[in-house]
Amino acid sequence: METELSRKLGIEHAIFGFTPFPAVAAAITRAGGFGVLGAVRYTAPDDLARDLDWLQEHAGGKPYGLDVVMPAKKAEAPGNRTLTEADVEAMIPEGHRRFVEETLAKHGVPAFPEGEASGWRITGWMEQVARSQLDVAFDYPIKLLANALGSPPPDVVARAHDHGVLVAALAGSAKHARRHAEAGIDIVVAQGYEAGGHTGEIASMVLTPEAVDAVSPLPVLAAGGIGSGEQIAAGLALGAQGVWLGSIWLTTAEADLHSRALTEKLLAAGSGDTVRSRALSGKPARQLRTEWTDAWDDPNGPGALPMPLQGLLVADAVSRIQKYEVEPLLGTPVGQIVGRMNSERSVQQVFDDLTRGFERAVDRINRIAGRRAS
Amino acid sequence: METELSRKLGIEHAIFGFTPFPAVAAAITRAGGFGVLGAVRYTAPDDLARDLDWLQEHAGGKPYGLDVVMPAKKAEAPGNRTLTEADVEAMIPEGHRRFVEETLAKHGVPAFPEGEASGWRITGWMEQVARSQLDVAFDYPIKLLANALGSPPPDVVARAHDHGVLVAALAGSAKHARRHAEAGIDIVVAQGYEAGGHTGEIASMVLTPEAVDAVSPLPVLAAGGIGSGEQIAAGLALGAQGVWLGSIWLTTAEADLHSRALTEKLLAAGSGDTVRSRALSGKPARQLRTEWTDAWDDPNGPGALPMPLQGLLVADAVSRIQKYEVEPLLGTPVGQIVGRMNSERSVQQVFDDLTRGFERAVDRINRIAGRRAS
Repeated sequence: METELSRKLGIEHAIFGFTPFPAVAAAITRAGGFGVLGAVRYTAPDDLARDLDWLQEHAGGKPYGLDVVMPAKKAEAPGNRTLTEADVEAMIPEGHRRFVEETLAKHGVPAFPEGEASGWRITGWMEQVARSQLDVAFDYPIKLLANALGSPPPDVVARAHDHGVLVAALAGSAKHARRHAEAGIDIVVAQGYEAGGHTGEIASMVLTPEAVDAVSPLPVLAAGGIGSGEQIAAGLALGAQGVWLGSIWLTTAEADLHSRALTEKLLAAGSGDTVRSRALSGKPARQLRTEWTDAWDDPNGPGALPMPLQGLLVADAVSRIQKYEVEPLLGTPVGQIVGRMNSERSVQQVFDDLTRGFERAVDRINRIAGRRAS
Repeated sequence: METELSRKLGIEHAIFGFTPFPAVAAAITRAGGFGVLGAVRYTAPDDLARDLDWLQEHAGGKPYGLDVVMPAKKAEAPGNRTLTEADVEAMIPEGHRRFVEETLAKHGVPAFPEGEASGWRITGWMEQVARSQLDVAFDYPIKLLANALGSPPPDVVARAHDHGVLVAALAGSAKHARRHAEAGIDIVVAQGYEAGGHTGEIASMVLTPEAVDAVSPLPVLAAGGIGSGEQIAAGLALGAQGVWLGSIWLTTAEADLHSRALTEKLLAAGSGDTVRSRALSGKPARQLRTEWTDAWDDPNGPGALPMPLQGLLVADAVSRIQKYEVEPLLGTPVGQIVGRMNSERSVQQVFDDLTRGFERAVDRINRIAGRRAS
């Protein structure tokens, strides 16, 4: 599965795998794809360095990348100071904090034991956190830097290019894609409505060719709704130079969701069991629909706060729900292809299924087109 | 573009075109596809007969079909009577009627002149109307009967099969597709979230292969988000035996929207300018987003009534908006591909673009797969 972009990056298959797990990223890269490690959950630069050390050691000398969540617009506190976590905490209304506790109490979610710190906090989308991640990342031979929210700031693009690192940015519309191209990025990831995580309203079938037309000759990766080789063939038929898969890896043997109950929930879920909700971060993100997302999406509730307030507001709560595996509230970002994630496979098995499915789809298309192919 | 299904129907290309316009249906069939005339707007059986006469005369001896909107469940009035239009009218709350008039007044929409009857009323989704359409349709050599809402009743399936007519039904989920298969239908039209008209929440990229797996070996047509040859290739790569296109014909030279302003609006609209709204019929249907849909989707408004009440409630209003071309309110069902409907072409030109784009996509996929094809 070779395109101009895959040749440029020196990978065998134009399959890009986004994952928060270093073991999954390494396995994707070893299998001939391009593993992209999601950095949003790393708060401490040392933790990211440790995992990049590991990834570098286990990638078999093949290329990989990093995905950060850097807002294009700087969030500013009064007096033009860069917004700190404390500033954001101070902006959260008391009523919303009460709603969090009431919702947890209704489902009997225990508090953290006395003295135990909270779990992770998603602060990676605060600019200073993302920048400290980059300070670490450029010490490693990453080949791609992807930004999940908007175009990266110009100095970041320049710094990446100085290091010989290609820059990708996610786009939910042709307009976003054009803005990225103007910002000097190298690859547009066109992320359709059906994708897990932050996503817009245009479905991949429509978005992919629109993005291709908008930024050509810049390469576009098709993202959203892709978890099989047939779906890869569809994305490539739409003009993409590769595909970007995130959800499919969540139920692989190498993934570590820290919750067996959550893995089981993913394996059991159908394609109709996700929702685009602001519950997670304050921006619409597709995730498993749970009583937690229902509470935030309820028109009679207080509703989610804007980014980055919502992420900080719910950080502890989400950690508690995960630690105690409170089933009705337990969720994760995932796309509509969750309906086909019905068995646990190794990353290599997923990869083999993808490439075989792709070949089958090519055979099928050739038969329909009346072509003989060899 | 040949599949088992296209061979069975004796058509050159596995492209099914749904349209409310006989001239478009005939041109699709003549071009080598399969034209399907939408019957929902016909209230009088004689009008349908007149247009089927015309279609038969202009289809060049090639096959075509009819699309009805027949609810699987009979709507019943008290005392087990079949629900009449008068029954439905009586169920509409006065507040909703006031809201219609207020919204029209706010935009200065004139009333019909004294003595002039209202325009069309969409009553085709009332069972007795759909059945009277079938009484007409089976007098013509239609080759396909499609149902847009649920499985057709068993006696209708049996009657179609007695006439040698294949039965298709639209499905927005694998569950719907399975239900159709159990009802004995012959073809499932898997209609994704991005489609115009009544549609569910699962995007085509995910829905198509799910429907294929759910009903195989029954053939599936991919619908939703398809308006180019590349999108056709994608739909076929996903396992469909053909594609079902509706929106793309709306701006063809043969289409008659009765409003130049509406045609201009479609030509100018982007893929983000549609909305899944209950404004039209009471069930979520994708259409141009207008101040009319905004009014019905406003959480502070009365909200749309359930089907079939909403359709009757707004019938006159929609006719008035169209007659007087009140631009901010003027809309039509259309899918997200409206973003690529930027020029008026003849049906034959659209068809040529589709088949050329398909061949390009096949070339591209073969290059990526490293195949030589001839």
